[in-house]
Amino acid sequence: MAERGGGPAARTVLQQCLQARLQVKPADHTSEAQFVQIDRGMVIYVCFFKGATDDILPKMVSTLLNLRLCESDSGKMVSVLELPGSVLIVPQATLGGKAKGRAMQYHNNISKEDGLRLYGAFVALCEKELTAAAASAGTEVTVKHGTYGNRQVLKLDTNGPYTHLMEF
Amino acid sequence: MAERGGGPAARTVLQQCLQARLQVKPADHTSEAQFVQIDRGMVIYVCFFKGATDDILPKMVSTLLNLRLCESDSGKMVSVLELPGSVLIVPQATLGGKAKGRAMQYHNNISKEDGLRLYGAFVALCEKELTAAAASAGTEVTVKHGTYGNRQVLKLDTNGPYTHLMEF
Repeated sequence: MAERGGGPAARTVLQQCLQARLQVKPADHTSEAQFVQIDRGMVIYVCFFKGATDDILPKMVSTLLNLRLCESDSGKMVSVLELPGSVLIVPQATLGGKAKGRAMQYHNNISKEDGLRLYGAFVALCEKELTAAAASAGTEVTVKHGTYGNRQVLKLDTNGPYTHLMEF
Repeated sequence: MAERGGGPAARTVLQQCLQARLQVKPADHTSEAQFVQIDRGMVIYVCFFKGATDDILPKMVSTLLNLRLCESDSGKMVSVLELPGSVLIVPQATLGGKAKGRAMQYHNNISKEDGLRLYGAFVALCEKELTAAAASAGTEVTVKHGTYGNRQVLKLDTNGPYTHLMEF
């Protein structure tokens, strides 16, 4: 953790959506592009920094899924678990960028190998928490996620994205 | 500026788009909702904090429009001025939120009156810089913007949002 030098271990940007669609596999000469889609819920863009470890994940997931960021039909602010809404997780290394002159640098971003592992664990933990909450509420919600390292071709339809920044 | 206590004066989130559409006036009983739209370019979500003044705007606008955040057709990273692309500015007070327990608080956000004035000046400066750059390049680009204080009903189509955070 000392590597981080006081900065955050992870940065997330959260946007509310009515529908979101993300490419998980680009087209190639043998097959068409593949997409995942959620309806009402929340898009989580996530980036891990150097020094981030699995230790931060339980608190991070619990915070993100329990924060009252979503507007219910009655206009009350509730969490995505309470809505209940679906979640689309988008790996977004650009969030770790720092401007140097006119260029963006990503020197503080985690390595690809560690990032891939943490991202996988983050997605699995979100799935676990959201599925448990949905089962106990008797509703159907899903967790979808982008492919780490790919271009994140995204389409977003919102009734107000209510963009939030959360760092851990 | 002392009020800010070392925090940023403004927070922006930047996303690249192929097309973005924003409601600027909700429907009422006499008229339909009104929208603005840009094609290829950049969405700037902006939030000002307490203590922000006009002094920060020239550097802020110049930085945002000149940072190499956009992918040109040849795959080179260029600024939105160089692309040249259009800009959609979205006032986004939620960006100033801070979690307290499960609730978001917005105590550090600028007052509505000051925020409205700064937002207007920010939009005007973006328009000026982008129009000058487009004229000298002989191209047509536009600056569109949301209505401060309204719900920001947004539709976004991207080839990768390349989400960035910039604070000033």
